[in-house]
Amino acid sequence: MVPDMTSGGDLSHLRRLNTLALITALREEPSQTLTALSRRTGLSRASTEDVVRDLIERGWVAVVPPAAGMVGRPARRYRFRADVGHVLGVDIGGHKILVVVADLDGSVVHSSRVAVSPSLGRKERLAALDSAVTQALAGSGMTAEDVWAVGAATTGLVDAAGRVMLSEALPEWTGVDLAAHLRRLVGAPALVDNDCKLAALAESWRGVARHAKDVVLILAGLRTGAGLIIGGRLHRGFGNAAGEIGALPASGWNRAQEHLKSWQSATASSGEDASAKAVFEAAREGDRRAGTVVRRYVRELAVGAAALVLTLDPELVVVGGGFSRAADLIADPLRRELDRWCIRTPELRISEFGDEGVALGALRLALDHLGHEVRERGDLGGPALFAHGLAHRAGRTSLSK
Amino acid sequence: MVPDMTSGGDLSHLRRLNTLALITALREEPSQTLTALSRRTGLSRASTEDVVRDLIERGWVAVVPPAAGMVGRPARRYRFRADVGHVLGVDIGGHKILVVVADLDGSVVHSSRVAVSPSLGRKERLAALDSAVTQALAGSGMTAEDVWAVGAATTGLVDAAGRVMLSEALPEWTGVDLAAHLRRLVGAPALVDNDCKLAALAESWRGVARHAKDVVLILAGLRTGAGLIIGGRLHRGFGNAAGEIGALPASGWNRAQEHLKSWQSATASSGEDASAKAVFEAAREGDRRAGTVVRRYVRELAVGAAALVLTLDPELVVVGGGFSRAADLIADPLRRELDRWCIRTPELRISEFGDEGVALGALRLALDHLGHEVRERGDLGGPALFAHGLAHRAGRTSLSK
Repeated sequence: MVPDMTSGGDLSHLRRLNTLALITALREEPSQTLTALSRRTGLSRASTEDVVRDLIERGWVAVVPPAAGMVGRPARRYRFRADVGHVLGVDIGGHKILVVVADLDGSVVHSSRVAVSPSLGRKERLAALDSAVTQALAGSGMTAEDVWAVGAATTGLVDAAGRVMLSEALPEWTGVDLAAHLRRLVGAPALVDNDCKLAALAESWRGVARHAKDVVLILAGLRTGAGLIIGGRLHRGFGNAAGEIGALPASGWNRAQEHLKSWQSATASSGEDASAKAVFEAAREGDRRAGTVVRRYVRELAVGAAALVLTLDPELVVVGGGFSRAADLIADPLRRELDRWCIRTPELRISEFGDEGVALGALRLALDHLGHEVRERGDLGGPALFAHGLAHRAGRTSLSK
Repeated sequence: MVPDMTSGGDLSHLRRLNTLALITALREEPSQTLTALSRRTGLSRASTEDVVRDLIERGWVAVVPPAAGMVGRPARRYRFRADVGHVLGVDIGGHKILVVVADLDGSVVHSSRVAVSPSLGRKERLAALDSAVTQALAGSGMTAEDVWAVGAATTGLVDAAGRVMLSEALPEWTGVDLAAHLRRLVGAPALVDNDCKLAALAESWRGVARHAKDVVLILAGLRTGAGLIIGGRLHRGFGNAAGEIGALPASGWNRAQEHLKSWQSATASSGEDASAKAVFEAAREGDRRAGTVVRRYVRELAVGAAALVLTLDPELVVVGGGFSRAADLIADPLRRELDRWCIRTPELRISEFGDEGVALGALRLALDHLGHEVRERGDLGGPALFAHGLAHRAGRTSLSK
């Protein structure tokens, strides 16, 4: 039984619609007067006042204190309380697990990072995930109760139910039901999708691609992948397997990674720093061998990128992922290589999220879920606007208090 | 000045909406009673009768004669007169110009084909186009007056205004303003797009892809190209250059064509039939050399096809174009090759349109334009529902009477 549906039974359908209209209006501006809210929603002044009072009682709306030094008696202003609930965005990668905590407006209030080894088995990786989430909640002074939804990203193919269908990069990861694991862990709805797809979603939401409708996101890091925004929406594909051009040998993406690995193994044996970061630093400092590795890497990266561009003719290509921090070394050569292959080279931009784009996309997945539930189910009567999560809390295991 | 807008000035907005609702309802079933039409539109019986009478006067609606041998007095039935206007679909290729004539329901009433050489210059190709259109009109017993819109397809990149931006296959074709040429020729609105894109549109409209939302159409013939349907809509790309994966050497499509050409030059010098059709026939009859050529052709075709599939993860891949007639030789090997490269091999189907899919897609482009004009402008008051074409007729040159 869903408590919010029950306690909301006394609200008429019309009242629910009015409430939804008012919350939508409140979220469009940081602080508004009753007059402005009434104009924006088309509700009468009396109805507006009525619904606002109700929302204040429920904890959804707060009165904004008047600015210091105001003369006279200014109209009272109201704001949506985005901190009435929180969501998690989780990126479960080969080398790190990153958890970001955000309020209902998507403002990040905390993030926690745990380094992991790509060779971890399933149990160890899930344990690392649990401790990263626990750490994030502790760090933000919250409990699982405060989390209304979790979005998570991982490498590999993920099905619509949030299970990992195939992961070539992570041993024993194929078959993991990540959504179920997170649901049990936090006791809130959990959504899971592929990391490249969610990185594309993040760029389209609040990154360098937010004004573009058709976007190719290339996630460049210790692995290479792609996510597509088509017509302003994340393109998942019929089997949620879009963007997997890297699987084709002709795309060059496997060779791109091999260039980096060859440098790493050569360097490691000589006792130098063999991290991917180090190759870019060495190239920056004029190391010829490192420079050649980076050039070869970009040349192979460009073939798969050109295949995506020639297929979709996007408005914009975004390079994201950890290697986006080497924009100074990658951007210009990549642009030149794309010019070589493409009929119409689109604008090329570098992500500003570094290696945090995937987690931000996961955050967006969680927020989208909440927004969808509100629109579809009109869950406006309960203690919390997005409170369907409460219904699942009986099943919570690890983190509940 | 647009005559139909003027003469429609006496129709109230509501009356126009009622008329549009009724025409839409009439087009959903071949023949309907007033009762059925009133139910379908939600209009009162009196309003329905009123609008139907008006549409009969305008020539848009006809009374269906009662079936022979009917006893009693059955309710009178009405039908939309799709033959009140016609559209042309034109495919201007390297080797042929194909013109199909259809009524407003898209039923093809006539088609004309003119063989041309790929080496024709601009003037000669345009002259061949003019004569193909003239021939199609004569063959269907029509004049340019009967044509309400023209859709045309050609190889190469076409801009939104219907100009050829770039054609690598046809000499002197780059820069041709095809839309303007057709508009002057027929005196009706003319829309032009790339041939592969329109072939995809045709499959999605009334071909083997009509139930699929995400489709990759591979136009396989003397050239190879691709058209994409994404989310049920033709995906054109930001610069109308989507689907051009063949431009990438790694796609293998240039090599695919070279295998055919090598066979053709070898065969031509020995005096045998060197047409593409002949290589398939020879392969069918067990000619080993021809069999090898077809195998190599399919292997290279599959690389570019796999790049498209891995990028988009479509529900369906359709092979269209002239070579679709060699489905018996191509389909199974192509499926096997796709299995080799793809993570999830989509369903593979062969077009049933042979080399006429492109012209059908062009037809659909013309019909879409008419439908769009009706919805946007509500041109329901004039002598013809889609009669905005009349406004342009003053500029007609060649074919007008």
